[in-house]
Amino acid sequence: MVQHGARLVRCLGQAFKGCRAIHTKADNSRLTIARILEEKPADPTDVVVTGFIRSIRNQKQRSFASIGDGSSLEPLQALLTPAQAQSLSTGTAVRFMGSWRPSPNPKAQSHELHVVDVDIIGPADPATFPLQKKYHTPEYLRTMPHMRTRIPINSTLLRLRSDAIAAVTSMFYEHGFAQTHTPIITSSDCEGAGEVFNVGTSRQGPKTEDDDGTFFRAPKYLTVSSQLHLEALAQSVGNVWTLSPTFRAEKSDTARHLSEFYMLEAEVIFTETMDDVMQVVQNTIGAVTKGLETGSRVGNELLQNAAPETELLRRWRGGSRDFPRVTYTEAIRVLQSSTHQFEHEPKWCSGLQAEHERYIANELGNSSNATIPVFVTHYPKAIKPFYMLPSATSEDGLETVDCFDLLVPEACEIVGGSMREHRLEPLIRSMQANKMIPPGPMPTDEELGELKWYVDLRKWGSVPHGGFGLGFDRLLAYLAGVPNIREVVTFPRWVGRCDC
Amino acid sequence: MVQHGARLVRCLGQAFKGCRAIHTKADNSRLTIARILEEKPADPTDVVVTGFIRSIRNQKQRSFASIGDGSSLEPLQALLTPAQAQSLSTGTAVRFMGSWRPSPNPKAQSHELHVVDVDIIGPADPATFPLQKKYHTPEYLRTMPHMRTRIPINSTLLRLRSDAIAAVTSMFYEHGFAQTHTPIITSSDCEGAGEVFNVGTSRQGPKTEDDDGTFFRAPKYLTVSSQLHLEALAQSVGNVWTLSPTFRAEKSDTARHLSEFYMLEAEVIFTETMDDVMQVVQNTIGAVTKGLETGSRVGNELLQNAAPETELLRRWRGGSRDFPRVTYTEAIRVLQSSTHQFEHEPKWCSGLQAEHERYIANELGNSSNATIPVFVTHYPKAIKPFYMLPSATSEDGLETVDCFDLLVPEACEIVGGSMREHRLEPLIRSMQANKMIPPGPMPTDEELGELKWYVDLRKWGSVPHGGFGLGFDRLLAYLAGVPNIREVVTFPRWVGRCDC
Repeated sequence: MVQHGARLVRCLGQAFKGCRAIHTKADNSRLTIARILEEKPADPTDVVVTGFIRSIRNQKQRSFASIGDGSSLEPLQALLTPAQAQSLSTGTAVRFMGSWRPSPNPKAQSHELHVVDVDIIGPADPATFPLQKKYHTPEYLRTMPHMRTRIPINSTLLRLRSDAIAAVTSMFYEHGFAQTHTPIITSSDCEGAGEVFNVGTSRQGPKTEDDDGTFFRAPKYLTVSSQLHLEALAQSVGNVWTLSPTFRAEKSDTARHLSEFYMLEAEVIFTETMDDVMQVVQNTIGAVTKGLETGSRVGNELLQNAAPETELLRRWRGGSRDFPRVTYTEAIRVLQSSTHQFEHEPKWCSGLQAEHERYIANELGNSSNATIPVFVTHYPKAIKPFYMLPSATSEDGLETVDCFDLLVPEACEIVGGSMREHRLEPLIRSMQANKMIPPGPMPTDEELGELKWYVDLRKWGSVPHGGFGLGFDRLLAYLAGVPNIREVVTFPRWVGRCDC
Repeated sequence: MVQHGARLVRCLGQAFKGCRAIHTKADNSRLTIARILEEKPADPTDVVVTGFIRSIRNQKQRSFASIGDGSSLEPLQALLTPAQAQSLSTGTAVRFMGSWRPSPNPKAQSHELHVVDVDIIGPADPATFPLQKKYHTPEYLRTMPHMRTRIPINSTLLRLRSDAIAAVTSMFYEHGFAQTHTPIITSSDCEGAGEVFNVGTSRQGPKTEDDDGTFFRAPKYLTVSSQLHLEALAQSVGNVWTLSPTFRAEKSDTARHLSEFYMLEAEVIFTETMDDVMQVVQNTIGAVTKGLETGSRVGNELLQNAAPETELLRRWRGGSRDFPRVTYTEAIRVLQSSTHQFEHEPKWCSGLQAEHERYIANELGNSSNATIPVFVTHYPKAIKPFYMLPSATSEDGLETVDCFDLLVPEACEIVGGSMREHRLEPLIRSMQANKMIPPGPMPTDEELGELKWYVDLRKWGSVPHGGFGLGFDRLLAYLAGVPNIREVVTFPRWVGRCDC
């Protein structure tokens, strides 16, 4: 661990040239169960294990305790005397001291701890402990988000998120993207279409024409996207990204929507080709899947729980392939020529429904041994937001924009991106066409209102650029094979629900 | 770059054992100005540079353009004919093609670009461009946060943040801490003391006893701290951390306060000693300063702008020293025996004022060549929140808690942490003493209200633990030598101000 650590710090320390490993002091000397299982303890006759009892099995002469600490799906098996095991029950926090010996049943576990001393750190009354060792439905567990991550597979999902954050941080760092902190409280709602949460508190200031007496003197919202702010930062510091909480006050009560979720957004500057942007999407997903595919701890643990595991493996393999691309117009043709009965008829210039997205993902993303995400590009201008760049050429005279969605089975759309309209005049015309500002040659600052600053970005030194937003929770749910996004978010928020 | 990259991914790829570098495809082939200045271009006769004009100087026979792209404080100098330079002005986005040749004035720059071709990508009308090359006050620049990061030193501050995030991500990853995403919309206000922002939107549901008709059916707030949620996660997955936006609706209009700021919080589990927690604080700050101190690009750039630069160097050196520790009681004695005239008289059991914190930081954190942050520990129980663990021994019979603040000059408190009360009964008593719940043997669920889940954590398998919160923006301001925190946050929010 320390060795890996030193190497890692040296490398990330390229952020600061010449950086050396400085983290030689351990934070605490505790060995996690994952490390005990992975590495032979330095002195096998003197091992200290701390963790929580997952289950206990009493025989006449001895007792077997299975303990975990969240670092590993696999438990550590401990052998105790019945007397030592007396006050132990599922959920109890313990410290066991003993010796680490080869197991007589190596198929079950290679080693087991022969316990000499037991400390009960925190008891768990079996009469009230809500997570007894038995099957609980996801719905039941969601009523206690503060407890459910104690279930081993939920700890694995926490570690998946952590590893995924590390992997994308590394990838963007390596590629020279600056990580930024975009604001959460904002004045505009980006696409003008989302349902937003209001933020505020009374300042009890005097109400005047320019001051409504609230904390910020005007209505403010929780951000629905960091895109507009990222565009400003990209013009300042080059390619940028952020992994930031994002909010929608949508009343959707589905397996794919949350009111609060993490979005990974990036902007690529000084580029005229959408390929550059789509390549960053591939790199991002590949950064997360590569390790899972080649057998990480988290990857192995997810496979142990997956049914069928082959589909999970296919998804992970698919993450590092070249993603197939199809235009929206071609996609509509594929849907129209299919014999599948859709609830909504697929037709040009209406959005793709979830059923359409699933069909496209399944039809075009299947290779012999991988499930590959599918890019659908060049949607009709009429159904996309004002800031997208119109395509240079149009197919059959139909007006499209340079944009893409990335589709996968089950989770459907996990990424949306586009080239941005970087020219002042066309941006104004697009805002007018979308009835965001009144018609006329050039709007006043007042007419532009909360988007004045965004229009400003096109006035001085504007350059071609594009970017995307990736639903980080959806990606994790897809890669973990978890059907409901509420399972990969520890404290999920949706309409009517905000527990803890 | 690609070489560093491959190594970096291999290392962070330990998240996923066996991970290899997969990011071989560049996102776009653009060379940043930092790379051109650092590395000799592969073919010096055919160099393409994109960026923004910082200044232009016309002579009779030739013109000199200084251009930047946010990747480097140092500009790139380009030589043009007066005809080529005709339409160029400060802020213009350009693409220059030419050859990279040694400069006749190597003291000013080692090489310069002899321009053959000029593309104007995005013009900038000098009559309206608001960032002409001259001094602008911070106050003026804050009126246009979307533009001010185009100023070279502000780009450096963006890159400092990015590098700092990478450094702490690496450090925590190496030390086996899981990075988590704690919720932003919450039901409780943690310490019960903060002024909170309300979040909501009308759901227009029916109002009943359990449903106030709003989106979440009950009042919700923007988080003031992730601590309580992190404590739940620590019991699930071991040591955890988060770098998360945090909110205070305080009307403070100071150089050290924002309404929206990033807090780095961590919890260390299965530990009974606060030293373990304080060591993580040192590791965190050391991870950021080590590179600055030993001469990173960002470090060198900050020094170029600092006056006096020696104080900056002292702060960076101090980050990797052992931080001195003093108890609150000793600190009060130091203050009382000082000849310094304080506005507020220092006395036991009142909080430390900013003037006291500054004095302690200056008196106890000065070594011969470094300014070292100072830990003040064991504050009186009466002035600290309900969740802090009472100290085992008390000095002079005065009741204290196992807690610490970390103080630095100017920014004052940048970290606060403590051991947490992990025992059920004492926690209940402490909540009662703080009048959060009524007196009595054991409160009902209803009385516990929005803190029921937090109390639950002490019911089953509770273990000793502690943690801290570090004001990430304050740390960056301190390390950058920037007197106002509003300069290190791109889109700062404070009372009455939420621009863009």
